[in-house]
Amino acid sequence: MTNNTPHIIKNDPWYGSYASRAEDMRASEIRALFAVASRPEVVSLAGGMPYLDFLPFDELSELVAKMLREEGSHAWQYGSAQGNAHLRERILDIVRLEHITDAQADDVVITNGSQNGLDLITRLMCDPGDVIIAEDPNYVGALGVFKSFQAEVINAHMDADGLIPESFEESIKYAIAQGKRVKFLYTVPTFHNPAGVTMSIERRTRILEIARKYHVLVVEDNPYGLLSFDNKTYPALRSMDPDNVVYLSSFSKIIAPGMRVAWMIAPPGIRQKLVLANESSILSPSNMSQMTISTYLDNFDWKKQIEEYRGMYKSRCETMDQALRTYMPYCSWNKPQGGFYIWLKIPEGLDAKAMLPRAITARVAYVSGTAFYDTGEGADHMRLSFCYPTEERIVEGIRRLSTVVDEELATAQLFGTTSTSTIPVIKPEN
Amino acid sequence: MTNNTPHIIKNDPWYGSYASRAEDMRASEIRALFAVASRPEVVSLAGGMPYLDFLPFDELSELVAKMLREEGSHAWQYGSAQGNAHLRERILDIVRLEHITDAQADDVVITNGSQNGLDLITRLMCDPGDVIIAEDPNYVGALGVFKSFQAEVINAHMDADGLIPESFEESIKYAIAQGKRVKFLYTVPTFHNPAGVTMSIERRTRILEIARKYHVLVVEDNPYGLLSFDNKTYPALRSMDPDNVVYLSSFSKIIAPGMRVAWMIAPPGIRQKLVLANESSILSPSNMSQMTISTYLDNFDWKKQIEEYRGMYKSRCETMDQALRTYMPYCSWNKPQGGFYIWLKIPEGLDAKAMLPRAITARVAYVSGTAFYDTGEGADHMRLSFCYPTEERIVEGIRRLSTVVDEELATAQLFGTTSTSTIPVIKPEN
Repeated sequence: MTNNTPHIIKNDPWYGSYASRAEDMRASEIRALFAVASRPEVVSLAGGMPYLDFLPFDELSELVAKMLREEGSHAWQYGSAQGNAHLRERILDIVRLEHITDAQADDVVITNGSQNGLDLITRLMCDPGDVIIAEDPNYVGALGVFKSFQAEVINAHMDADGLIPESFEESIKYAIAQGKRVKFLYTVPTFHNPAGVTMSIERRTRILEIARKYHVLVVEDNPYGLLSFDNKTYPALRSMDPDNVVYLSSFSKIIAPGMRVAWMIAPPGIRQKLVLANESSILSPSNMSQMTISTYLDNFDWKKQIEEYRGMYKSRCETMDQALRTYMPYCSWNKPQGGFYIWLKIPEGLDAKAMLPRAITARVAYVSGTAFYDTGEGADHMRLSFCYPTEERIVEGIRRLSTVVDEELATAQLFGTTSTSTIPVIKPEN
Repeated sequence: MTNNTPHIIKNDPWYGSYASRAEDMRASEIRALFAVASRPEVVSLAGGMPYLDFLPFDELSELVAKMLREEGSHAWQYGSAQGNAHLRERILDIVRLEHITDAQADDVVITNGSQNGLDLITRLMCDPGDVIIAEDPNYVGALGVFKSFQAEVINAHMDADGLIPESFEESIKYAIAQGKRVKFLYTVPTFHNPAGVTMSIERRTRILEIARKYHVLVVEDNPYGLLSFDNKTYPALRSMDPDNVVYLSSFSKIIAPGMRVAWMIAPPGIRQKLVLANESSILSPSNMSQMTISTYLDNFDWKKQIEEYRGMYKSRCETMDQALRTYMPYCSWNKPQGGFYIWLKIPEGLDAKAMLPRAITARVAYVSGTAFYDTGEGADHMRLSFCYPTEERIVEGIRRLSTVVDEELATAQLFGTTSTSTIPVIKPEN
């Protein structure tokens, strides 16, 4: 019996007893960094935390108290595995902004954040060894889920117009040639994390055609779709092909993440299984969380609130773009049209992962591009978030980052290589 | 490519594309029943919903509003995958009541309800075909999780003193003889769901010895442990063997389930992986939910509240026991010393599953014993919950149930068999 092994390794007596999916479970690069990067003296361009100070905290708190007083016996109690019917109705108003006009409340499943939704759809579709086609680079949290269900990720490439249809089709063909089952395409078509790019309308049509041709499901992850900088809202893939797309979105970026309320819209057969998978995974989403979100949607002008967010994030993005032009003109990047991130290409010879401890020593944090690949690639990029820090801090962060990069460049030019990674030592701000 | 199958079955174009774990996903018996049993004219002895009207709704609502006003930027934001440090500290006070005195806040992982905890530990430990030893009968929600990770459940028997050590050891030996890896024992040692029994102290020691002997982890699910009827608190298995037990408990039954806040206490190696699995599954538990629970614990006399609950559930249990003696003396059951359930053995020849639609027609609901087995067994039992209905309703529910059972008995005596299942038709209450 393998779990009777006498070899005690790493002091864990259960080593050797875990499922094979847990064998190489390890903290993501983002997570390992989180503790040190969240110290106040560090300008963090690393996280994806939304800026919340625009929310009407005080009024909302009062309304939540009123809701709890009046509907406590519902809010404090177990809910349904599919989520509250009232909230599912309200979600239809939101997705209509992305041209999803035919969905019914019964097509919607509430999840405990979109991470939980990704977990559910992967669990539902993927046996070990099944293939998921994913964009390159790819959202780090999705990679973790795919790995935990032992799915194989095959990358498809992007450019400034998002996922390249030919690359998508090549990846499907490659997988089929290897005798693999392709279970779905995972895509963040709008304001991509981390790449910042958006799939053009023409490409949306083409990607869906290819997916249908090979009977490959499309999983559309869309947390940023409403956060455009030019008031333009793209049609969701779901709006263009209801039968072949599972759509995920969340209140985390457009309202607040602390309630962990997100949703999926899926074709009936898949939706039915998603509800059962949700029940097996968490029994039911939190009634209190869902009713807090409903309280907000029912009592505030949430569309206007989203417009305010758009303006703020746009301004922060422009500030970061300008600071990069000023301090790091030798780097390249696409200026995003929405979302939270700039995907910065750093000069050749530099290594974003190796450089990170030195950046933190200089009191600025980012996410190394390597976090968004399973392959070790990505050291030539960093993801810079402009969502959370104020504009002043963004400028200061980019300035600090430029001093690190400048120094690295000088070292590289002198020695033909950069110095090796060191443990960060953070000095007080002044 | 199998997922290119042209066979469209059950109108689901994705049939044939699902992971094998999803193939026989279906609604639990409890769930399928829920819609009709929750109609107000039906006395539901089916659900496990706690009775919440004793909670200080109004004061708590005000304090939650205050917390949201003062700490909104934390409550509305993302949290840590392990859960809030403050709440983890407070949990140590609670588990001390069950003799867990050595645990540290770092040993605790907050989960989105204990269902999520069961999901995480199963995901962490079980490859398809691995064995979980579970009590017979077994909590229905756990069976669903085990199935979703394709673990094989081997039953071990219980009697009035809980899990029988010899049966546990036999099950391990049987699995080993078949070349299987036994990953853990899943047990609800105290106030078992559905069986209502409690593992004696002597047996706790013996079960842990056997588990150690075979290096089998013990997963102790303990949502009811504090809800004893005689003010006696059993020592948790975790308190007797910290290195070999993963302990799960929840605020759902002792405070309220609407926040979906539960916790696990695990040995360091397992705990570390649980945090990563939690992150992969839900990113982080809800800050707002956790801070609501902390607000309650920090501001109210929660121990006194639990004592009130004990008194109320004890009284309801006694009422149900008395009603059963009055109306159904030909059945047999163990009177539980705590928890929510009576596990009723019905007269031979009757079938609890077949009888259920007729019971609902008579405006009373229960859960058929078959829900707590994977094998089709259990039709000779029903689970009766005394947690939610008032005492008056409990008596009325048992009276209604007795009329159905009496009629079934008469039919069985006349024809040697009971009538077949029919669709329930519910008449108005009066």
